[in-house]
Amino acid sequence: MPTYGFPSAMRRLILELSKLPTIGEKTAMRLAYHLIKEDERDAADLAMAILEARKKIVFCRICFGLADEEVCPLCSDRSRDKSIICVVEKPADVIAIERTNGFHGGYHVLHGLWSPLKGVRPEETKINELINRVQKSRERGSKETRIEEIILATSTTVEGDATAMYLAKNVTELGVTVSRIAQGMPKGGELEYADQGTLSHAISGRLKI
Amino acid sequence: MPTYGFPSAMRRLILELSKLPTIGEKTAMRLAYHLIKEDERDAADLAMAILEARKKIVFCRICFGLADEEVCPLCSDRSRDKSIICVVEKPADVIAIERTNGFHGGYHVLHGLWSPLKGVRPEETKINELINRVQKSRERGSKETRIEEIILATSTTVEGDATAMYLAKNVTELGVTVSRIAQGMPKGGELEYADQGTLSHAISGRLKI
Repeated sequence: MPTYGFPSAMRRLILELSKLPTIGEKTAMRLAYHLIKEDERDAADLAMAILEARKKIVFCRICFGLADEEVCPLCSDRSRDKSIICVVEKPADVIAIERTNGFHGGYHVLHGLWSPLKGVRPEETKINELINRVQKSRERGSKETRIEEIILATSTTVEGDATAMYLAKNVTELGVTVSRIAQGMPKGGELEYADQGTLSHAISGRLKI
Repeated sequence: MPTYGFPSAMRRLILELSKLPTIGEKTAMRLAYHLIKEDERDAADLAMAILEARKKIVFCRICFGLADEEVCPLCSDRSRDKSIICVVEKPADVIAIERTNGFHGGYHVLHGLWSPLKGVRPEETKINELINRVQKSRERGSKETRIEEIILATSTTVEGDATAMYLAKNVTELGVTVSRIAQGMPKGGELEYADQGTLSHAISGRLKI
């Protein structure tokens, strides 16, 4: 990185910032300068927020969403209908769906999509955990709410579709209704960036696979 | 910030990240998720780099560039011709000019531009410090190298031009040659993002004001 003339602490900060996704060298330089120049408390607050988040945030034991206890607030909420589970790629997608106010079931966060092209195998995501979760819930005498329906709300990209197909194949066998969010979403779109209307429509118009 | 469903440590991290320039809420969410999910050491390294940079980096006593000692490496470098000073807005601009390999004098970093529209007064930048620096260097018996020329290399924006004019007026009186980088740069362009050829040309083609 050609930042000769900068002291080593600045070079190190630029290097660490440019490891973040979507942050190139010039943006990293701009962010580093902001952190050096502006209110010292802001810089300290950010550093502490990073350390605290790493320390406190865990994945929910049930849905693998973000939690600060063993079970996340959404899984602990008894008013939600846990017989219907919405499957998403990442935590931000849960927020996107919650914002529509059109879904009141449970979630399952995959933390990745099956992608033979990018070399991501199902085992590197929480896909198998979902299959186990459904299986367990349907066993005689299970304490968990029996899962009756799975909504596959992965992005409508090649990887999102492939993951949905893989899950549909494995979960339908368990006697569960499996649906895919309606293709009211633009093809190739990222779930996280969809507007609320499109996303709400896609959930209500889901089709049985 | 509508991030209900996220634990408080995650909400706090997103909030702190979105205080950074050019980082909106969605990018902040993406960065926060990356920091939570990827290698723990990367997150800790970033936090430490922020704290270390705040602790170690100071503004050079002479040029106000970034330094980890009282005087920055460029001002300490005796091989550079300190009779000619290149005036820039921010530390990243020093790097941009150093990259051209076409300038071997000293610098002065203003940390802001005079902008009546944005309500930034000259006193909020290091403009007066430059005038004092030139004045002192030209006093009889001064230990500093006598400054003979000032190159005004602020961006070719309204604020950059206004600052250059303000400085030209105040420094010319002191008997110093004042020049402006040639308008080989595209009008309205930000110095930091100029390509090396354009910037090199602009420096060599500077015009006396």
